[in-house]
Amino acid sequence: MEVKVIARIENDYKEKFGIPRQSGLVKSSLSKITFEPEFRDGNAVRGMEGYSHLWLLWQFSENMDAGWSPTVRPPRLGGNVRMGVFATRSPLRPNPIGLSCVELDHMEYGDEGPVIYVKGADLMDGTPLVDIKPYVPYTDSHPEAESGFAGDVFDHHMKVEISDELLEEIPKEKREAVLEMLAQDPRPGYQKNNERIYGIEYGDMNIRFRAEDCRITVTDVERRDREQEKNQGQSSTSYGDKKV
Amino acid sequence: MEVKVIARIENDYKEKFGIPRQSGLVKSSLSKITFEPEFRDGNAVRGMEGYSHLWLLWQFSENMDAGWSPTVRPPRLGGNVRMGVFATRSPLRPNPIGLSCVELDHMEYGDEGPVIYVKGADLMDGTPLVDIKPYVPYTDSHPEAESGFAGDVFDHHMKVEISDELLEEIPKEKREAVLEMLAQDPRPGYQKNNERIYGIEYGDMNIRFRAEDCRITVTDVERRDREQEKNQGQSSTSYGDKKV
Repeated sequence: MEVKVIARIENDYKEKFGIPRQSGLVKSSLSKITFEPEFRDGNAVRGMEGYSHLWLLWQFSENMDAGWSPTVRPPRLGGNVRMGVFATRSPLRPNPIGLSCVELDHMEYGDEGPVIYVKGADLMDGTPLVDIKPYVPYTDSHPEAESGFAGDVFDHHMKVEISDELLEEIPKEKREAVLEMLAQDPRPGYQKNNERIYGIEYGDMNIRFRAEDCRITVTDVERRDREQEKNQGQSSTSYGDKKV
Repeated sequence: MEVKVIARIENDYKEKFGIPRQSGLVKSSLSKITFEPEFRDGNAVRGMEGYSHLWLLWQFSENMDAGWSPTVRPPRLGGNVRMGVFATRSPLRPNPIGLSCVELDHMEYGDEGPVIYVKGADLMDGTPLVDIKPYVPYTDSHPEAESGFAGDVFDHHMKVEISDELLEEIPKEKREAVLEMLAQDPRPGYQKNNERIYGIEYGDMNIRFRAEDCRITVTDVERRDREQEKNQGQSSTSYGDKKV
């Protein structure tokens, strides 16, 4: 079966590093979903506003060439334990389709057709969607479900420390999302280095932080737009480099 | 993106009529999932037993040629109201991929590789699967979600009446599933005819019933294997005919 891209998502997750491990963990982060021209039909979303949550089915577009692997090492298990790929939500599956539940924030209608704003996505900016479905709690919600190894290791909340000065550098409407993202401890499970300063591209910012025990300390917030003004005429700085 | 069939499901739903409208509604119905030869690797399901529920992503194989439609008429709304296809779980979507949560019953390992037995599926016998994922409640379960129009019309339980004699015709291990299936009122929303006798192919049975108000009365249970014995030498009866 040939699967078509029906829409694309836009948000502040500009690189893999920093994207929450599952949907719903960083609730305040807003994403915009725009349909591909072929599917820009207001009728196709009629009634969607009645739902509070949506399913996104999407392509693991970053991992398309990686192929599948019968076993994978979930980051949450420290990266050393191998689990069957069908017992995980890893992208390294035969059909690289991701499944994420997001909160419907609001919808707009304009030149781009219907546009859907959602919260809590765990998709990178630009990720292609292959389907959007309503979340129907009577069939989708099973709070009593047992979650194997994924449940044991979920509660990894970090305390986030940031100075008032650095907080001012983050646009007001994005502060909560940035703090939630850091509280999830975005560092890879197998790489916990207290000395290292990490950098995450989020929106037009590069957010640098250090981590120690249960505490994350933001050490710098660079705004690309401001940097560009400052650096005019100079060579550009690479913000993708995580070893800053 | 080209999507591969990774597995197939086998169960008692031999025709579209009678399949529950969503997963989890007929909890007692057992299905068997067998991987395609290319994916028969016990390692690929390592750790799956730790989960109580699984997601199945599958092809609406019965509707592959129907194409997509911006609006559809959900059967639960009586078949007269048009909703946007992305506000429904209808098969008439651009990418005909279904999403169903099922309960993991048990697993077996043998000549066919790992075999997964699940309960509560809403897939027809033989449906191809494109993915199996663990159900992870912290990200997938949202009991507080609002479910738009789908919630308003959910509670359609019927009282099912069946004589002891007819009940004896149904194999013991399938009785509960048959009664649950009928209690869902399998009749199309737009076709409520009190006079008519309906017939559902379930396993090797043809289950005939009449419906009136909130009551379904089973009028006959024909077992194909027994009928075949009786009819030896005669022309075969068509059990697919719903107008019996």
